[in-house]
Amino acid sequence: MYRVAIIEGDGIGPEVVNAALHVLNKVVARYALNIEFIKVEAGDAAVKKYGVAVPEDSWRIIKSCDVILKGPVGESAGDVVVKIRRGLDLYANIRPSKAFPGVKALNPNIDLVIVRENTEDVYVRAEYILPNDVSIAIRVISKKASQRIARKAFEIARNRRKKVTVVHKANVLTITDGLFRSMTYEVKKEYPDVDIDEMYIDAAVMDIVRKPERFDVIVTTNLYGDILSDLAAYVSGSIGLASSANIGDEKAMFEPIHGAAFDIAGKGIANPTAMILSAAWMLKWLGEKSHSERYVEAGKSIERAVEITLAEGKKLTPDLGGNATTIEFTEAIASKI
Amino acid sequence: MYRVAIIEGDGIGPEVVNAALHVLNKVVARYALNIEFIKVEAGDAAVKKYGVAVPEDSWRIIKSCDVILKGPVGESAGDVVVKIRRGLDLYANIRPSKAFPGVKALNPNIDLVIVRENTEDVYVRAEYILPNDVSIAIRVISKKASQRIARKAFEIARNRRKKVTVVHKANVLTITDGLFRSMTYEVKKEYPDVDIDEMYIDAAVMDIVRKPERFDVIVTTNLYGDILSDLAAYVSGSIGLASSANIGDEKAMFEPIHGAAFDIAGKGIANPTAMILSAAWMLKWLGEKSHSERYVEAGKSIERAVEITLAEGKKLTPDLGGNATTIEFTEAIASKI
Ligand SMILES: CC(C)[C@H](C(=O)O)[C@@H](O)C(=O)O
Ligand SMILES: CC(C)[C@H](C(=O)O)[C@@H](O)C(=O)O
Repeated sequence: MYRVAIIEGDGIGPEVVNAALHVLNKVVARYALNIEFIKVEAGDAAVKKYGVAVPEDSWRIIKSCDVILKGPVGESAGDVVVKIRRGLDLYANIRPSKAFPGVKALNPNIDLVIVRENTEDVYVRAEYILPNDVSIAIRVISKKASQRIARKAFEIARNRRKKVTVVHKANVLTITDGLFRSMTYEVKKEYPDVDIDEMYIDAAVMDIVRKPERFDVIVTTNLYGDILSDLAAYVSGSIGLASSANIGDEKAMFEPIHGAAFDIAGKGIANPTAMILSAAWMLKWLGEKSHSERYVEAGKSIERAVEITLAEGKKLTPDLGGNATTIEFTEAIASKI
Repeated sequence: MYRVAIIEGDGIGPEVVNAALHVLNKVVARYALNIEFIKVEAGDAAVKKYGVAVPEDSWRIIKSCDVILKGPVGESAGDVVVKIRRGLDLYANIRPSKAFPGVKALNPNIDLVIVRENTEDVYVRAEYILPNDVSIAIRVISKKASQRIARKAFEIARNRRKKVTVVHKANVLTITDGLFRSMTYEVKKEYPDVDIDEMYIDAAVMDIVRKPERFDVIVTTNLYGDILSDLAAYVSGSIGLASSANIGDEKAMFEPIHGAAFDIAGKGIANPTAMILSAAWMLKWLGEKSHSERYVEAGKSIERAVEITLAEGKKLTPDLGGNATTIEFTEAIASKI
C-alpha cells in the first residue's frame, strides 16, 4: 500500500486538488490500486491557524508518506515547497514543456524538459542583515549537487533527442556558475551518446520564446530553473497545463507549476489539468519505482484521457477558450478512463 | 568640449561602433558639436594583448572622460561592464522596450522601461570556494542603492504612464528582496501621482511576453533586470534594436543590449541600430545635463533618421528581413540627417 500526502493548497488549490482526487479515485477502482490519501494542512491556511506554513504534525505525516501530491500554495508557498524539497532532498525538479494537440501554443515547436537543481542556489535561504542597512543572501553551489543533477539531465536526454544545454551566468558568477557548468561538462564524459552545449540565462530566456526547438533538455541551477519554467510553460500553451516532479532518491513530490490564482479562486472555473497530470505522473513514478505495471498504466490512462479531452475541445475551461467549469472538464476526463 | 571614450568591443563590435561613429560625425558637423572621441582598448582583444579585460591605461582614460560609448564585448564582457558600472557608480541601468513602426514585433503593445539596479546583487562578484567542494556567491542588496534606484524609476514613470512595478522574489529571498521591495514602497510615498504594484520574477518573465501592456516602468535588482531586458527587447521586435543607458550622478555609459554575435562578425551584415541609438541617447544625455539644446536636437535627429529608415523598410539588415549591409543601412540613416 502506498501512502500519499495531499496538500490542498490555497486559492484554486482545493478545487484543482479535488478534481485530481476525483480522477485518481476513478483509476484506483479501475486498476485496483492500493493507495491511501492523507490530507495534510500546509500553506496560508496553516499560517493563519497555527502560525507556521508547515506545522510539526503535518511535517511528520509528510515525512512518513511515500509521495506527496501538492496543490498550489499562496503567500507561504516558498516556506512550504522549499521545506519539502530541501527537507526530503528532492533534488531534481523536472519540468517538461510540450504543446498539446488542440491547445494553441505560442510556439508549437516547443518540446523540452527543464531539469532544475532543487536544493541549493539562493533557495538555501541563508540571508542576513549587516550593519549600515546592507542585506546579503548566500548562493550555494556544490560539486556534489551539480553532479547529481547533471547526471539526471543526461539520463533524461538519453531517452529523448540526446542534447543537454547547461544554462548559467558564468560570465558574472565565475566561481559558482563556473562550478555548475564545469560539473555538467565533466558528467557529460559518462554520456558519449549525448551532446552538450551551453547558454547564458539572459539569452536562454529569449530563445525559449524565439526558437524553443533548439532545446531538448536544459539543466540549470535552482533560480534560473524557476524563471525559465513559467515561461516555457506559457510558450507551450498555458501555465495551467504544466505539471512538475520533485524527485529524490527515495521520495518525490508532484505539483503544478502554476500558483494559487486567487483572482479566480472559488469561481469553479480553474483549469485542473496541471494538477491532474501531476497526479498521473505520481502514479507512473510509483509504478516505475516498484516495477508495478498497473500503476504505470493507470498514470498513462489519465494522460490519455486529458489529451483526448483537450484535443476534442468540447469541454474546456475559460483559460483555454471554453466555458466549461472545473467540474465539467474533470468529468469529461474521468469519463474517458 | 566633451570627451567620449569609445570601446569598440569584440565580434560585431567594431562594425556597429564604426556605423555609430559615422552617424555621430554627421551630426557633429551638422549641429556644430564639440566632441572628442577617444578609442580605448578593452575586452577580449585586451585580454589577449595585456592579459586583462580593462588595462590600467584604458581605465585611466575611461575615468577621465565625460561619457562612454561601448560596443558589445565577447567572453570578457562581464569584466568590462561590471568594472565600469560599479567603478564609476553608474547605478541606474535604463532599458526601454518599444515596438518601432515598420518592424514586426512579437507583441506590438509593448511599451515599457526596465530600470535595473546596476551596482549590487550578485554583480558585486564576491565568490568563494569553501571546504568540501562547496562554492558560494554573496548577493548584496542595500537600503541606499534600493532607494536611489526606486527614485529613478518613479521619476521616469512620472513622465510616462505613471506606474511602477517592482519585480522581485521575496517569497524566497525574504530579507534581501524583501528590503528591495519595501524600499520601493517607501519611496513611492514621495510620488503620490504614481501607482505601484509588484510581481515575482518568474511571473514577470511570462507576462512580458503574454501581456506586456500591463507594464510601464519596471524597477528590479541587477540580475532580474538582466534577464528581463533581453526578453523585452525580443518581444518589441529584435534585440538588435535595443539600446541602454548606465547612468550615475556624474557620468554615464551607453551601450546596446545585444552581445558580440561572433557568428556573424566580419560579414558586414550586423544591425547597428542599437549602437546608433545608444549614441543618440548619449548626445541627449550630454545635452540635458548641460542644458545644451543643440546636443539634445542632434540626438533626436539621429532617432528620427533611424525611425524613418526602419519604417521605410527599403534598406534593412538581414535580421530585419532585408538584404542591406551594415554600411548601406547606416548610409540610409546618415542620409536622413
Ligand atoms: C512558490 C515559489 C517559492 C516556487 C519556487 O520559486 O520554486 C515556485 O515559483 C515554483 O517554481 O515552484
Ligand atoms: C555581459 C553581461 C555581464 C551583461 C550583464 O549581465 O549585465 C549583459 O548581459 C548585459 O545585460 O549588459
